[in-house]
Amino acid sequence: MTEPTWMYENFEPAGSAIGYRITRKLDEVQSPFQKIEIFESTDWGNVMLIDGAMMLTTRDNFLYHEMMSHPALFTHASPKRVVIIGGGDCGTLREVLKHPDVESATQCDIDEQVTRMAEKWFPELCDSNGDKRAELLFDDGIAYMANCPAGSVDIVIVDSTDPVGPAEGLFNKAFYESCFRALKDDGILVQQSESPLVLLDLIKEMRGEMGKAGFTTFQTLPFPQPCYPTGWWSCTLARKSGGFDYRVQDARAKTFKTKYYTADVHQGATASIPFVAEALGGA
Amino acid sequence: MTEPTWMYENFEPAGSAIGYRITRKLDEVQSPFQKIEIFESTDWGNVMLIDGAMMLTTRDNFLYHEMMSHPALFTHASPKRVVIIGGGDCGTLREVLKHPDVESATQCDIDEQVTRMAEKWFPELCDSNGDKRAELLFDDGIAYMANCPAGSVDIVIVDSTDPVGPAEGLFNKAFYESCFRALKDDGILVQQSESPLVLLDLIKEMRGEMGKAGFTTFQTLPFPQPCYPTGWWSCTLARKSGGFDYRVQDARAKTFKTKYYTADVHQGATASIPFVAEALGGA
Repeated sequence: MTEPTWMYENFEPAGSAIGYRITRKLDEVQSPFQKIEIFESTDWGNVMLIDGAMMLTTRDNFLYHEMMSHPALFTHASPKRVVIIGGGDCGTLREVLKHPDVESATQCDIDEQVTRMAEKWFPELCDSNGDKRAELLFDDGIAYMANCPAGSVDIVIVDSTDPVGPAEGLFNKAFYESCFRALKDDGILVQQSESPLVLLDLIKEMRGEMGKAGFTTFQTLPFPQPCYPTGWWSCTLARKSGGFDYRVQDARAKTFKTKYYTADVHQGATASIPFVAEALGGA
Repeated sequence: MTEPTWMYENFEPAGSAIGYRITRKLDEVQSPFQKIEIFESTDWGNVMLIDGAMMLTTRDNFLYHEMMSHPALFTHASPKRVVIIGGGDCGTLREVLKHPDVESATQCDIDEQVTRMAEKWFPELCDSNGDKRAELLFDDGIAYMANCPAGSVDIVIVDSTDPVGPAEGLFNKAFYESCFRALKDDGILVQQSESPLVLLDLIKEMRGEMGKAGFTTFQTLPFPQPCYPTGWWSCTLARKSGGFDYRVQDARAKTFKTKYYTADVHQGATASIPFVAEALGGA
């Protein structure tokens, strides 16, 4: 047994860092797109890093995966067709497939190695990969959305890394236009939108690009996520029109288990926070 | 100008770390109780460390100070007499004094040097120290509560460091008995209660000790706090009897500014979180 050591991710844009006490490196692969590493930690289970950035830990990933999926799925009146762009660890897919209404969910991640590493080191996240409603593609998500039949999708979830490297093209007008086209009129686009404490400029810019693509209403939901910079993260929902009232009775009566998400947690995440609203211009 | 470097706090009980990019050390003092250091950071303003643990930054302390005070003050029907044990940086005192109903607020911190450092490096937190309702004592908070006239206090806020070192005696039955005695029948005890993600055992133990001292109802409110381990923190409220319905109309109509706290944020923080409720035995 090696002596535990500390491993840090210095998040340069925010001037803050996150770290874990680790016991050993379990695995490493350099894919055509990025370097994926798996570490064993003393308290957080396994930890996945992509190009040196913390992606997920066994212990805390449920926060992110539940909040990337359930608020949108309970906001849509009847989500049948879901597309996940990125999401190679399969954790978001698993949450989406907990909804019995969902008839098909396609996960399109450019990097097959992320899924192979998840199957090996985070098998619990891949529980639903064999679900007959699930389709796993390893392809360019930008091209996938561009080629998606118009008006064919209820929800697009963009579960990507930060807007640098392979994921950069998932944060601009051209990509959002493809999503807009692919979504039905009552569809919802969801994107991970970084830390509401330090990256409000990014959230504002993202909403701006979404707006240029035609989306008219936005909702940013914050949630705790210790393995990401500042420990406080968010997702942003966008719609062609209409609001974000969610199916509160259905959320209360949900037939599946969650560790963080509930109807009340959903409601709580919708609370307007003064300093956030001010930075986003009253949104 | 020195080249920025990274400074980390390794939080051993959780196996996780927090760090900031700093430019220089601004100040340092070894008080009779602890070592207090002030650093200048690139993105977070000034950072105070006590015995190597991050205490506050200019940028994010409002989250903690607002949540340690306003939920309790808007839960109490008419908070006139408030005691803060610890809280030497004066940020909680400032928030408490925003409530016009408060007639007197005593802050009792064992370490005068914390307040002197706050006055120098976080002057905005000390804005209300000259308020005629404020009393600043530098004395043993355990003795202060033990000598408090019975039934004289509406709210006791325990704004302390972690339960090791000088603050250890603020997390046990004997101290809580003093608080119980000093509080009026409708009084509220508030204590910072660490990270709800990793320190649920501590929260459970704290509630247990509070219960042995006579408190019967408890409410743990989570909130984001990037400079503390995991970035997700909490406070726990305890009452002799009765619930935690808060004065929602008064909170909505509050006459002072906040950056995080609102009536809706308060409501959101009361949402039961499945994994927390399970760990706390349904609480």
